[in-house]
Amino acid sequence: MTEKVVIILYSDDLDKACAAFNIAIGSAASGKEVILFFTCWGVNLVKKEKGPTKGDTLVSKLLNKMMKNGPKKLNPSKFNFFGIGGWLMRREMTIKKMQNIPEQIEMAKDLGVRFLVCDQPMNMMGLKREDLISYVEKIVGVGTYVKEVSESHVNLVF
Amino acid sequence: MTEKVVIILYSDDLDKACAAFNIAIGSAASGKEVILFFTCWGVNLVKKEKGPTKGDTLVSKLLNKMMKNGPKKLNPSKFNFFGIGGWLMRREMTIKKMQNIPEQIEMAKDLGVRFLVCDQPMNMMGLKREDLISYVEKIVGVGTYVKEVSESHVNLVF
Amino acid sequence: MTEKVVIILYSDDLDKACAAFNIAIGSAASGKEVILFFTCWGVNLVKKEKGPTKGDTLVSKLLNKMMKNGPKKLNPSKFNFFGIGGWLMRREMTIKKMQNIPEQIEMAKDLGVRFLVCDQPMNMMGLKREDLISYVEKIVGVGTYVKEVSESHVNLVF
Repeated sequence: MTEKVVIILYSDDLDKACAAFNIAIGSAASGKEVILFFTCWGVNLVKKEKGPTKGDTLVSKLLNKMMKNGPKKLNPSKFNFFGIGGWLMRREMTIKKMQNIPEQIEMAKDLGVRFLVCDQPMNMMGLKREDLISYVEKIVGVGTYVKEVSESHVNLVF
Repeated sequence: MTEKVVIILYSDDLDKACAAFNIAIGSAASGKEVILFFTCWGVNLVKKEKGPTKGDTLVSKLLNKMMKNGPKKLNPSKFNFFGIGGWLMRREMTIKKMQNIPEQIEMAKDLGVRFLVCDQPMNMMGLKREDLISYVEKIVGVGTYVKEVSESHVNLVF
Repeated sequence: MTEKVVIILYSDDLDKACAAFNIAIGSAASGKEVILFFTCWGVNLVKKEKGPTKGDTLVSKLLNKMMKNGPKKLNPSKFNFFGIGGWLMRREMTIKKMQNIPEQIEMAKDLGVRFLVCDQPMNMMGLKREDLISYVEKIVGVGTYVKEVSESHVNLVF
């Protein structure tokens, strides 16, 4: 039986997303079945680039407006300094030839990493399936996570 | 043998607590034994509503004063904006008929999720058993966590 | 076969590092093989006390300057208030006779906890092997983590 790795991507911080994708890619490359489960802020990582800045309520409108940049312009969990830190770190990653998040997403896709998205933040942000990148396999409830993780060997939260 | 799920609730952020309780409830509902291990800021989630605002030292007094609201008024890990974001998100959860934390705690209790609390933050905050909700099974040391988690199938940190 | 515990130390927050070291020490004391995998900000925990404040690029210089204090002066993830909170909490830990991080590192060493460091943040911060404490076993890529974690029974991220 193939070993299964189930990673919750809870955060959309640049550094945490990098770590999660690195482990996902490394695990898939060594032959494991890998599921990335995007929830809460992590849903921003799989929104279309020109994602919606609207929503069904005031709060979902605000949330979508504040997070309209998509995976290209993520900020780090520390030292962001109103975006300057984020810009500097993304630039540094280019200088040091590290993959950025869109490139890591592509690599994960090539290796068959499965992308599942949690339904609760979709509801909270007033998002629909068509607001997400097409590679997303399915929007699922917590029951699916519980089932998948119970068959997993490695389970992490980022 | 029943599968065991051991979740560390490290944070008292609204969003992280929601995620942890969702997984705990989903796992318990599908027949697994679930232990929530409250440590560090997570201890705030199981403090009595009119919890103590005193403590045995300056720092524990400050910590208890700053976190006197209990599970009813948690704030999100992002976009809190001095409480406005927290208020808006709790309101949004009501509008969208999502369970709030006190309701999730009740549901977890009904499903037999076990609540263990770490002794170190209790000491740090100068709290006693009677400052916690009665449902808490026990205040335990890290040794208990190590034992429980070594028997677990799924182990997460929120 | 000895049970293996693999913990990612992602953060250099005082509270998270404490939690991770507590579990590492508790697990090692009960006979398990424990690997601490330092990545991202966690690398600061294993930098030499008079670590480098230089780097190979502007960003790595800035990162090293901002995090030059080493494990003796970590700040908490909440209520830091420009260092006052961090100072108060470290003081409180002394008053309440809790081990500080350098003491926990010593204890982990005595119990044979293995320290592995991720190569990506080393590259990002422009650090070399000699900038880290000598106890660090090796600087490794994500492949080593994937291998170790797939043999582990407990795997956590802090």
